[in-house]
Amino acid sequence: MTIDLAALDAADPLASFRALFEVPEGVIYLDGNSLGPLPKATRARLADVIEREWGADLIRSWWTNGWLEMPGRVGEKIGRVIGAEPASTVACDSTSVNLFKTLAAALGLRADRRVILSETGNFPTDLYMATGLAALLGRGHVVRDVEADAIEAALDPSVAVLMLTHVNYRTGRMHDMAALTRAAHAAGALVAWDLSHSAGAVPLDIAGCDVDFAVGCGYKFLNGGPGAPGYLYVAPRHQDAAMPLTGWIGHAEPFAFAPEYRPAKGIAHALVGTPHILSLAALEIGVDIALRADIAAVRAKSVQLAEAFVALVERDCAGLGLEVTSPRDAALRGSQVCLRHPRAEAIMQALTAHGVIGDFRPPDTLRFGLIPLYLRYADIGAAVRVLAEVAQLQARIA
Amino acid sequence: MTIDLAALDAADPLASFRALFEVPEGVIYLDGNSLGPLPKATRARLADVIEREWGADLIRSWWTNGWLEMPGRVGEKIGRVIGAEPASTVACDSTSVNLFKTLAAALGLRADRRVILSETGNFPTDLYMATGLAALLGRGHVVRDVEADAIEAALDPSVAVLMLTHVNYRTGRMHDMAALTRAAHAAGALVAWDLSHSAGAVPLDIAGCDVDFAVGCGYKFLNGGPGAPGYLYVAPRHQDAAMPLTGWIGHAEPFAFAPEYRPAKGIAHALVGTPHILSLAALEIGVDIALRADIAAVRAKSVQLAEAFVALVERDCAGLGLEVTSPRDAALRGSQVCLRHPRAEAIMQALTAHGVIGDFRPPDTLRFGLIPLYLRYADIGAAVRVLAEVAQLQARIA
Repeated sequence: MTIDLAALDAADPLASFRALFEVPEGVIYLDGNSLGPLPKATRARLADVIEREWGADLIRSWWTNGWLEMPGRVGEKIGRVIGAEPASTVACDSTSVNLFKTLAAALGLRADRRVILSETGNFPTDLYMATGLAALLGRGHVVRDVEADAIEAALDPSVAVLMLTHVNYRTGRMHDMAALTRAAHAAGALVAWDLSHSAGAVPLDIAGCDVDFAVGCGYKFLNGGPGAPGYLYVAPRHQDAAMPLTGWIGHAEPFAFAPEYRPAKGIAHALVGTPHILSLAALEIGVDIALRADIAAVRAKSVQLAEAFVALVERDCAGLGLEVTSPRDAALRGSQVCLRHPRAEAIMQALTAHGVIGDFRPPDTLRFGLIPLYLRYADIGAAVRVLAEVAQLQARIA
Repeated sequence: MTIDLAALDAADPLASFRALFEVPEGVIYLDGNSLGPLPKATRARLADVIEREWGADLIRSWWTNGWLEMPGRVGEKIGRVIGAEPASTVACDSTSVNLFKTLAAALGLRADRRVILSETGNFPTDLYMATGLAALLGRGHVVRDVEADAIEAALDPSVAVLMLTHVNYRTGRMHDMAALTRAAHAAGALVAWDLSHSAGAVPLDIAGCDVDFAVGCGYKFLNGGPGAPGYLYVAPRHQDAAMPLTGWIGHAEPFAFAPEYRPAKGIAHALVGTPHILSLAALEIGVDIALRADIAAVRAKSVQLAEAFVALVERDCAGLGLEVTSPRDAALRGSQVCLRHPRAEAIMQALTAHGVIGDFRPPDTLRFGLIPLYLRYADIGAAVRVLAEVAQLQARIA
């Protein structure tokens, strides 16, 4: 088998995007699904926010430099990334906090049901936040998790909300959002999708899928920087649903300082406290880049990167104990490939020492994010060569 | 009456701190209690976080550059500002969200009581968050607000938690934290103090006052930048109390990715989602400056600035309809002075146009933050001169 990586790079319609990012010399960065790299434009934007907006214009920037609009403006852009209706998405808080808000709203809309249904192996914070909400409510809500293949069958009339991460953080398996949302609705349940590993990586059509709620994170494929604010989507039909974190920024008139809370119309009442302007400014730059890229081209390259990666691993690492655990069918896979190895942790340490940065997920998973905007096919070839050497060494040690 | 402002400036032990901040040419900034100015060191620190920590070190920075420890490290420093015990304070989320966590914990500790007692005219988001929590719980909790002077008498056995802002945002009135905390405890209630207008401005002794919970904001007297993360204090004796926002960063082992939530020991379980690193880095610089200043000297200068301001207003603005609404007794006043005027909004617009930046609070309040670290006595003199001219013009228009 021959894979002509050079030819693939030469024909890559996204090749120019790499220059928009800082990719350190000597590093092959396969962990952009943990923390995306620094967009070069972020540097100048943050310097301007610091010097001019904060330093010179001070408090006036809330009005004159659009700070008050930032959660809505950045949210609106993220909404375009995820295929949301206008005025349905805001950027704020963390993914965890946003999930709490949406789950509470969902449970309020399905007050006669007591089950939050999720997937075994969902990203832990999602399960934790749901459990914490159930405990706080004290009304007998339970978080039930089932294997991916058992989700549809578990959608019985007790389910208030189906809470799923679209692309599993550990395996890369991608759910059929349209089908599962339909199934949930048919069972009378609502859906809350976590898009942390999808937004900016795979085409999304939140509105077309009739999704009720969605949340996600800004620092993975959106390249918003470490701990970038998360985002939150509420379908227009649910935007009057009560949210539990009723902070002043979600008030209809925050600067009236009225004693009674009166929620802003629409998605704005999902906002809570004062927006983290520095973090939001960085997030906006990352989202702007995502919007410039043709998501169909991103997806096509992501699939090809993964196919090349898997083919090279199977060719060059045969017999070294590495097993591909991500789905082989590209339609069922997000923008990552995971391998299993009994000495995964040691292998990832060695890879990192050689400049190939991926992720170790205990107990035995090697996770590689294949991010089309800044990875070259040649990087995949180089990464697998290092992986093969490292795994060979481990085989000799073992 | 003569006030020798030049002599006061010449003798000011804090005079050197002004050089640590960017104060724009031609601006007298009396709104640092809304948004503190840019510390000069923030610029270089953020550039380093962006270039080296994010840009070059990428995902590794969570471990090698101390990102994971930032909420605890910055919180620990804020703990020193507010007089907290070690390991009792974290910096994270917004003030509003942190208040939600502490109130929920407090209500859990007083499960047989149903009242959140507060002050009429408390900062609205505090009242809103309490009301939202009560509505979410659906167990008959109510938020009761009474006038400041009626708080002690209202501490009956129905009160679960007394929630107060130490220095009122609108009047500048400062509560006696020790006395009200004692009174609350005597009534079997807990206390949750909002320190947004106190931390960095007045001496605080949270531990000595036996406070149960406290929260506050990072962008006022701590100069942490627009929308800086808030902070949260939990007394060591309450640190096992359940918090409702059970996110992965509050887990005992976040990177074990365990399916079940197990709270971290101590204050760390108050953390929720991934920390906003850029915003936290800026906050840390502001807090470092606060720690370098002798808080007794800060308080003494704050009182003198206010006395000078009030004396000059009474001398130079007599008959112009301006009324001092902050307490005249310095012991009852935070680091601000408020005036009332029927045309307050127009006056503040005119002041701002002349470079004197304060704050308008509807319907009729002019608020002036008197911040010792970067204001000179001469600034107070100049500000009152402009105020007198502007108010005279308003009197002629009216």
